[in-house]
Amino acid sequence: VALGDSDKVHELVGDLHEADLGALLELLSHEARPRLVELMGADFDFTALMEVGEATREDILEELPVETLVEGMRDLESDDAVAILETLEPAEQAEVLEALPAQERIVLRRSLDYPEGSAGRLMQTTLIAVPPFWTAGRVLDFFRETDGDELPETFFEVFVVDPGYHLLGTVFLDALVRAKPNARLDEIMQADRRRVKATEDGTEAARLFERYNLVSAPVVDESERLVGALTIDDIVDVIQEQASEEIKALGGVNPEEELTDDFWWIAKSRFTWLFINLLTAFITSSVLKTFQSQLEQMVALAVLGPIIAGQGGNSATQTMTVAVRALATRELNRANAMKIILRELAIGAVNGAAFGLVTGIVAANWFQNVGLWPVMALAMFTNLVAGAFGGIVVPLLFNRFKFDPAVSSGPFVTTITDVVGYGAFLTIATMWFHLK
Amino acid sequence: VALGDSDKVHELVGDLHEADLGALLELLSHEARPRLVELMGADFDFTALMEVGEATREDILEELPVETLVEGMRDLESDDAVAILETLEPAEQAEVLEALPAQERIVLRRSLDYPEGSAGRLMQTTLIAVPPFWTAGRVLDFFRETDGDELPETFFEVFVVDPGYHLLGTVFLDALVRAKPNARLDEIMQADRRRVKATEDGTEAARLFERYNLVSAPVVDESERLVGALTIDDIVDVIQEQASEEIKALGGVNPEEELTDDFWWIAKSRFTWLFINLLTAFITSSVLKTFQSQLEQMVALAVLGPIIAGQGGNSATQTMTVAVRALATRELNRANAMKIILRELAIGAVNGAAFGLVTGIVAANWFQNVGLWPVMALAMFTNLVAGAFGGIVVPLLFNRFKFDPAVSSGPFVTTITDVVGYGAFLTIATMWFHLK
Repeated sequence: VALGDSDKVHELVGDLHEADLGALLELLSHEARPRLVELMGADFDFTALMEVGEATREDILEELPVETLVEGMRDLESDDAVAILETLEPAEQAEVLEALPAQERIVLRRSLDYPEGSAGRLMQTTLIAVPPFWTAGRVLDFFRETDGDELPETFFEVFVVDPGYHLLGTVFLDALVRAKPNARLDEIMQADRRRVKATEDGTEAARLFERYNLVSAPVVDESERLVGALTIDDIVDVIQEQASEEIKALGGVNPEEELTDDFWWIAKSRFTWLFINLLTAFITSSVLKTFQSQLEQMVALAVLGPIIAGQGGNSATQTMTVAVRALATRELNRANAMKIILRELAIGAVNGAAFGLVTGIVAANWFQNVGLWPVMALAMFTNLVAGAFGGIVVPLLFNRFKFDPAVSSGPFVTTITDVVGYGAFLTIATMWFHLK
Repeated sequence: VALGDSDKVHELVGDLHEADLGALLELLSHEARPRLVELMGADFDFTALMEVGEATREDILEELPVETLVEGMRDLESDDAVAILETLEPAEQAEVLEALPAQERIVLRRSLDYPEGSAGRLMQTTLIAVPPFWTAGRVLDFFRETDGDELPETFFEVFVVDPGYHLLGTVFLDALVRAKPNARLDEIMQADRRRVKATEDGTEAARLFERYNLVSAPVVDESERLVGALTIDDIVDVIQEQASEEIKALGGVNPEEELTDDFWWIAKSRFTWLFINLLTAFITSSVLKTFQSQLEQMVALAVLGPIIAGQGGNSATQTMTVAVRALATRELNRANAMKIILRELAIGAVNGAAFGLVTGIVAANWFQNVGLWPVMALAMFTNLVAGAFGGIVVPLLFNRFKFDPAVSSGPFVTTITDVVGYGAFLTIATMWFHLK
């Protein structure tokens, strides 16, 4: 298709929804992607670039001439335009900004001044702000008379501001159309609407949206002046992104890793994580090495040790997963932390006793050595309680000291269960069987 | 507070937002919760019950008399009422339904007929449907003249239907207020709007919302008749829920487990998962047991084995995490599965070679035995390649056969790396050092 037959391309993909156009771009080869964009010319909907992975977006943007970019960006909503600019190299970013009309340039520059991932970067700056003395009927007339390009592409509410652009309240469209035409906006507006600070992180804003089931929210600067609006579709992306990052972090994968990333980048980032794990594995092996003579005297200990360590690791991972998730959703906080710690310890004790009993009996039969029963049972109990303790306390501590518990807890917690597991098992065995 | 002083309670919590009222309910004791609801009487906003955990909701609903329930439910939007009914015991559910006015009862019954978690359960049934020949002005007049109770509490669009209630298209409020008063709806409506089938799963609907950045979508039955509307706030809950379930499943926790659940329920559900893991741990130990004499002859193998098995397990978990997440977001599909399998194998080979080299050198020095270098290196390489293979192929297979890859992949994948890790290491060592 992308062999140069412009008419054919127009015909085939001209009417696609931006999301489907994005999916098509993902399927195309490295070379064909910018070619498709150029062939479609003015018909190419730049919002499709918001629907592809970051690697693909960079790929395309790098190849496009600045004029095509500037042309395409003029049709974008301001939040999408900011996202495109974010992807560009600083030099190219400046070039594109220069080429845009002054008004658009100023708005985009201001958004880019807010920190990455903040509400100020995600917000839509085209919005409808009207004075409080306007009536519902007047606003409706205003909509009908205003040229479509001056209004946001989609909107859910009208913001009511004073002459200094301070936010007084908002009127949802459904309230507006229900109101009597002569009702003043300050009578029908909601004055206590939750607002988002432009410098606030996107994830904070997402929490507000979730908690209060918002579909849009005004964004204000430090002096409570209205600077933009956040809509739920941007927030859904933030929520999804946050969940993906948490899942990847828990699995020991760089939260930034995407399926479309470069091979060597992925291999290197996985290597880094595995290297940290390797260091912890050597700590475990050092514990085993100090018990070398006992292992030689009684090889059953080498065979059974991994069961104690493994059960402890899995049990601690359960606790840690629950803790990390509950910290992310703010269900776990200072008010109930102590209660949850005690509960996890109790669960560890109950399951430790249960598994200690079971594995002890199995091991004693397997090796025809009745002494293995109390040794296994006691070690298993100790390790599951230690695992529960590590699984809840480590994420809480990381969270307290402002590290992301999802990223860092894993290796710590499993090191605890490995060291305590092998350590307790071999120490108890040494004493019980009088090994040396 | 909840000692019976009704006036004080009204004064303090009467004006709280439903989300904050929900948070307050969570903090109260088991006994105080229904007491608060009764004390507030008609002032209690039942939507607050949508903001608490499932265990707390059950807790409160169990204690409330049927009359209070029926009273409270009449003020709810239909989707929230369905969610409350879902929580009740069948007998109580029937009782509440009986006590509701016939019209509401029929609507709720129909929603409950759809499978749990389906769009039909999540949808809002109060909506605005008008004929295509109405003009924009006529719709606006209709809004002003209709009693507020007959309209949905919030709405974003007007549905255009034929006399048989088949969906013809939709008009967003912002399009409606921009239109000329004499414009017919069939001129300004979007006819190609994505629609959701009522029997479809909520997660399917969520995917549609995400892909096309929707804020609301019509729900239709098998014959394309309009039966309800889904709004983004319900979808956000589905997305968040889905992410939580995936995270818990990957951590070996029952996806249904919540922080507020009963102690014994949690302990039992964690036990079940650990029991499955115990069986796989015994498989690993059986492998070790067959090499008992070799371990006795050379105890270094018992010390170093966990490093090989552990690195393989962590590396496989990385691959599995990426695979499970990409399957959930549909980024990984038949079209690119083979490419990703080959890439993961290549990453496993590269990192296997790197870690084989490093750990081999360290081990050879540690035990002053140069032969450990090739043995460690070869075993590490083998295990990381096997782990990469298991980490991608196991989730793909589970997905192909309609099992949830997040729930079931973990134990399979780590069993592979444990068995291959210890097995390869001890086999290679047996041959290299001529052990028997």
